[in-house]
Amino acid sequence: MNFIKKLTKISKKNQSLLCVGLDSDLGKIPKKFNNQYDFNKYIIDNTFDLVCSYKLNTAFYEAIGYKGILALKKTCDYLRKKYSKIPIIIDAKRADIGNTNLGYVKFIFDYLGADAVTVNPYLGEEALLPFLTQKDKGIIVLCKTSNPGACEFQDLIISKKKRMKLYQYVAFQVRKKWNKNKNCLLVVGATYPKELKKVREIVGEDFWILVPGVGAQGGDLKETLKAGLNSKKQGLIINLSRAIIFSSNPREEAKKWQREIKDIVSSKY
Amino acid sequence: MNFIKKLTKISKKNQSLLCVGLDSDLGKIPKKFNNQYDFNKYIIDNTFDLVCSYKLNTAFYEAIGYKGILALKKTCDYLRKKYSKIPIIIDAKRADIGNTNLGYVKFIFDYLGADAVTVNPYLGEEALLPFLTQKDKGIIVLCKTSNPGACEFQDLIISKKKRMKLYQYVAFQVRKKWNKNKNCLLVVGATYPKELKKVREIVGEDFWILVPGVGAQGGDLKETLKAGLNSKKQGLIINLSRAIIFSSNPREEAKKWQREIKDIVSSKY
Repeated sequence: MNFIKKLTKISKKNQSLLCVGLDSDLGKIPKKFNNQYDFNKYIIDNTFDLVCSYKLNTAFYEAIGYKGILALKKTCDYLRKKYSKIPIIIDAKRADIGNTNLGYVKFIFDYLGADAVTVNPYLGEEALLPFLTQKDKGIIVLCKTSNPGACEFQDLIISKKKRMKLYQYVAFQVRKKWNKNKNCLLVVGATYPKELKKVREIVGEDFWILVPGVGAQGGDLKETLKAGLNSKKQGLIINLSRAIIFSSNPREEAKKWQREIKDIVSSKY
Repeated sequence: MNFIKKLTKISKKNQSLLCVGLDSDLGKIPKKFNNQYDFNKYIIDNTFDLVCSYKLNTAFYEAIGYKGILALKKTCDYLRKKYSKIPIIIDAKRADIGNTNLGYVKFIFDYLGADAVTVNPYLGEEALLPFLTQKDKGIIVLCKTSNPGACEFQDLIISKKKRMKLYQYVAFQVRKKWNKNKNCLLVVGATYPKELKKVREIVGEDFWILVPGVGAQGGDLKETLKAGLNSKKQGLIINLSRAIIFSSNPREEAKKWQREIKDIVSSKY
């Protein structure tokens, strides 16, 4: 099924905008788990009714080589088999020239069987066509990233287009040009609520925005939702990773965040 | 040994600025090879005395999942064991937030044991510190990529700094700020010789620039060398992938390119 539909459906069913990030750093997972897959399975089995998606960042798996890739694959297989209604986002932040991106497309959509991927915009739309032409997949383009130094290039004011900042122009291009298959989303960090508001203005109501940076990175949940939700009180995927998966009780922690999001969304604020 | 030193040394010994890109797409390698590793070994054994480095693009290995990662690892192990003087570049074009990049650092430098990596500048210096603080490794930052659509963002004129284009500002920042450990290089595509000349002007004599795009992508060798060499007739890594590895006689083809580069470098042009 189409990623956006799948996302919308499970988001309604689970009453949730929460994405749990399975950043399962082998050095940080509790010792009782033998490997990343066992840990992921435990987190998934304890949160599946509270989330709108799972996000797996390739860096934490590649870190240990082929065994990590196997754990990543097994986790995706498990999700597709047991929780097929929950979309899988691979946070890979990939971008290469056209021909080469086909390799990543095979890895992420054929081998892992994921529903969506994050990509880096620096090489432009033409390079990313092997991703963008995947009609049923979600292509989530980095726009304003959550890190403290994101401003170095992303906040540069560009001379054309009403002196937009680079991240705003990325949002503008993605909405206006890249989204021919209605499969694009953007990434904006919760650490930049003003910028999130600006991006929502640029992309309009129908766009989904993936928001990392609440929790361990310090982004404020209420501010984030206020800045980024569309008028239907939708359109944001709020990702939490470390704050949930490495807490003493991941289910309770996930429930807390899912409810907190729900409460804010349903209040008038 | 330090990447830049290793590169300079082998470049002098082999009289070569040629980097062979092991873009060993499983669907394209001759049928007599059982796997990517066997093919790579064949290419390496037939070109080791003609190159200044090998470049392996992760996309072609990830495409087939964990088996590809194993082939990538075995190739790096083979190079380190048998041809330890030739530096290994992993063309991964990675970039994530700081914490997460550590996973990629582990993959590329600890697990694969490579000498250098390509990274994407969009998240800024602060995010890339886990790479940039690897003093003995080469950190090769995308500047002007070789693809036809590279202009979309890279050629945007930014309002500050004398109306530089974005790719020029990336070169400027990398030279001025990012290069504290003297371990930075840049990527500029051979398909853009004017831009290569501009980047050489910005970064000065001592910078090495990795240049893909000669060969299959159509970049002109002579123009590239003329635009990018420093006054010592050095400072460029000329990468060829498909044009060499998928030719009927990879050794002859590599020799042809190595000599052609050498001839142009030693002529006055």
